[in-house]
Order: sequence, then structure tokens, then C-alpha cells
Amino acid sequence: MNKVIVVTGVPGVGKSTVIEGALKQLKTKGVEYELIIYGDVMLELLKREGITHRDEMRKFPVGPYREVQREAGKQIARVAKRKPVLVDTHCLVKKPEGYYPGLPRWVLEELKPESIVIIEASPEEVAGRRTKDTARKRDKEILNEVVEHQQLNRATATAYAALTGATVRIINNKDRKLSETIKEMVEALR
Amino acid sequence: MNKVIVVTGVPGVGKSTVIEGALKQLKTKGVEYELIIYGDVMLELLKREGITHRDEMRKFPVGPYREVQREAGKQIARVAKRKPVLVDTHCLVKKPEGYYPGLPRWVLEELKPESIVIIEASPEEVAGRRTKDTARKRDKEILNEVVEHQQLNRATATAYAALTGATVRIINNKDRKLSETIKEMVEALR
Amino acid sequence: MNKVIVVTGVPGVGKSTVIEGALKQLKTKGVEYELIIYGDVMLELLKREGITHRDEMRKFPVGPYREVQREAGKQIARVAKRKPVLVDTHCLVKKPEGYYPGLPRWVLEELKPESIVIIEASPEEVAGRRTKDTARKRDKEILNEVVEHQQLNRATATAYAALTGATVRIINNKDRKLSETIKEMVEALR
Repeated sequence: MNKVIVVTGVPGVGKSTVIEGALKQLKTKGVEYELIIYGDVMLELLKREGITHRDEMRKFPVGPYREVQREAGKQIARVAKRKPVLVDTHCLVKKPEGYYPGLPRWVLEELKPESIVIIEASPEEVAGRRTKDTARKRDKEILNEVVEHQQLNRATATAYAALTGATVRIINNKDRKLSETIKEMVEALR
Repeated sequence: MNKVIVVTGVPGVGKSTVIEGALKQLKTKGVEYELIIYGDVMLELLKREGITHRDEMRKFPVGPYREVQREAGKQIARVAKRKPVLVDTHCLVKKPEGYYPGLPRWVLEELKPESIVIIEASPEEVAGRRTKDTARKRDKEILNEVVEHQQLNRATATAYAALTGATVRIINNKDRKLSETIKEMVEALR
Repeated sequence: MNKVIVVTGVPGVGKSTVIEGALKQLKTKGVEYELIIYGDVMLELLKREGITHRDEMRKFPVGPYREVQREAGKQIARVAKRKPVLVDTHCLVKKPEGYYPGLPRWVLEELKPESIVIIEASPEEVAGRRTKDTARKRDKEILNEVVEHQQLNRATATAYAALTGATVRIINNKDRKLSETIKEMVEALR
């Protein structure tokens, strides 16, 4: 089997809602996916190494950290041997120090995704869902950040595709058309 | 020798016309290229496996399909040992289920292209040449699709360049300036 | 240690000024970087092979040229074992025949950069600093070229990130806000 679909999207894009809606619909049609949040698998593995909180993850030394990333990929690939897997993760994770690739080469080599889905939304809608940020930053700054992040995610997805042969699928999530977005996601998971 | 130039462009960009024009001019100057359409090599190889039509290609199981892709790359590289080769293919092939990378890593490893040429045109001109689509879709939708596809092709080409060291060359094909476009393509092939 | 930070930016973006300013500030704080211009290391290595000028570099046969590129990467990685290294290079080098990837896969495998910094500026400011080009080309043409080059550099940086796990950091260099840009660069190097 080995069906791995990676689903990505910037914070505030509505990714979880779309994933949940799609998995629910698929279940009624007899299609069952294992939903795996990549960051959770990482955190679980890092706990064994003494890391207890998500924010501490990056303080871990680079070499061993990459080994843990690869191990997380391996674990997910093992699940995919018996059931289709939807991996909830990021093309690029934005941190103050820059964008981290969510799926560097050594993770992709394990995951072997069939498809990389990017959920996108208009910068305005994304900003609207990021209320905490809005309090701190000027609106235009957030809009520019979302535009930049979404543009870079697209480029990153094509690099992942070049490395793995995965398809890239862009799904537009419009506030008032959630059912359409979910329908598209259902198609992406079939 | 081993000169492999990959030429790409979205459907409706005028790729074949530009390639034919350039190869014709080069021939008069004593420069002979072997023109190989990557999809044709694939189809030829897949026929041996029982696939008879282009649309069936993707139903082929992924593992063996990739082996066939690699084999196609090998065959083209063999031709390139005795003659320069122009490979007519795509950065990304657009299908209803998403964008497929035309040259995933294992193909690039065989092809070792010297250069990846992207022929681009304005979305309006591309849309104008896609009459069948125009009948079905609203104009603006097609324009957005072309913008997205051309943007993603550029990103994909840079990923191919990172993997192979190939140069990326963008050639703009304007409706009324075909001879200029062909001239640029001739330069790209010299 | 092995800290390698790659700093890139299109010609005219003000890269050298920003790098110098940042390294100077860091020095006062006791942080010392070795500044290595990748092209200089290449030229030094190629001199041994009879190449005496930068323009001759590309005439060198492809196979041996790549070996020299890899060797340059190895040399820089050796320096990084004892001191943090800032590598001044390009995501894509623009030449009449197209864009060359500054850090193809085999170089990245040696360099193992922690971060890829892209210094960007508005096309207008970049064009303003390229006086020689301005004399030859129409203004709008230069602006379009800078937009294209900066866009492709971003995509290329994400491909490098996918291959290496490096972060991508974009720093905006505004003419009248040099001290802010330098401050951001200092943060990127900490």
C-alpha cells in the first residue's frame, strides 16, 4: 500500500478544519486514513531524549535532531504499510531565525509521499484568523508575511516533488466555501 | 559529448513551433540536434508493459513506473553520447490530481542536462491558443491557471538546477516576435 | 563547530556593505567569522589548472569543473571546523546563457550550511546601484530582470533548504535603513 499524502498550509489557513472535514466524509465512504501530525511524532521521539516542550526542539544538536527527523519519517512509513496516512505538516516552518524546511531530503526519503497538498487562503483571511499576531503587528506587515510564506511554500513543494516524484496539489480555502474546499481535499485523498 | 538540453513550457506556449524553427536554423549552420519527446520514449517503453495509450500511463504502479522513467532517461543519455539532444518535456505536468514533476531526481540523474530552457508567454497568449479549454472554462480561470503553472515551473526548474547544476534559461515567446524567440532558442542550443 | 552561513543576493543589492557592517559589529561582541568568497576559492583552485581570469572559469570542462566546485566546498568546510564561516556567494549566478546554481547538490553536500540568507532590495534600489547596466539597457528591462532574478533566487534557496535542512532567511536592505539591515544580519549570524 504505502500511501502517504502530506498536507501543508501556513498557520491560520484553516488546515485542521479542512482535514477533519475531509476525513469524516471519507470515513462515511469506507475510506479510512491514519492522521499523523508530524510535529507530534517528533515531540514523542524527542521526549525520550529529554526534550519536554515543542519550543525546546530546536535547541537539540543538529546531527542527532536530523536522526530523530528521519526516525519520525520511518515510523510514519511503517504505519503506511497497513493503512493510508495523511501527514499534517509544513512545507516551511516560520521561526524568528528563518524558514525551516518541514520535509528535508532525509525525511522525504523515508516518507516517500505520493502527493503534497498545499492548502492556501487569501492573505486577508489568514490574517483574520491570526488574532494574536494582529495585536502585535501592523496589518500590512502580516499580509506581506503571509504572501511571502505562501509563495515560498509553493517553491518548496516543487523541490520536494523533484526529490520524490510526488504530485503538488494546491487547494484554495475560501471562508464561505468550506464545503467546496473539503470536497477538493476528499478528491486529493482518494 | 553528452549535451542534453531540456526544453519545457506550458501547453499553448508555442513550444513545438519554437523548437522546430530553431532546429531548422541550426541545421543550416551545420548543427544537428536529435529531438526527443520524453513522453514518446515513455510511451514506447510502457507499450512493452501492455500500456497502449498516453492516458493509461499513470495507472501503472508507481514503483515500476519510476523504473520506466529512469530507463527513458538512460536511453536518451545513450543517444546524447553520439549527438546533442534536445529533450522536449515539462517541468510540471498538470493533471486533475495535481502537478507531476516531469523530471524527478532519478530521471535527472540519468539525463544530466546542461541546461533547462523554459519557454514562457503571457497568460493571455497562452489562453488564446487553448481553444478547447476556453470553451469549458471562464477566461479568468484559465489566466490564473497559466500564471500559477508558469510560476511553479520556474520554481521547479531551480530545483532541477540545484540537483544537476544545469543552467535555467527563460525565453519569452511573444506572438508577433516569433523570429526573436527562435533566435534566442538558437542561442540556447549553441 | 561546523557553522556555515551562506549569504546571497543579486548584484547591486548591497551585500558586501551589509556583510562588512555585520562582521564588524560582531567582532566588537567577540564573535569572529571567517569571511570566504566562494568565487575566490574557486578561482584559486582553477589557477592551478591554468585558468587565470574569472571569465575563463566557465570554459573549463563540466566534469572537472564540478570536481573543483566540490573541492572548494570541502576547503570551506575544513575552515568551519575551527571557526564559524560566512560564505559570500549566489543562489543563482546570472550569465547571458542563463542562471547557474551557485550551490549545486555536490557543493551543498560538502558545505552543509546551517542557514541561507538572501539579502533583497527593491528593484529600483538595485537598478540604481547598477550604473553600468543602466547605460546599456532601458530602465524597465533592468527592473524586470531584478524582479525575476530575486524571485528565482527565493525558489532556489528553498531547493537548497530541502537538500540540506538549512533555514532560509530573507533580509530586506533598504537604502536609508542600512543600520537596521545590518542589525538583522547580525542576528542571522549569532
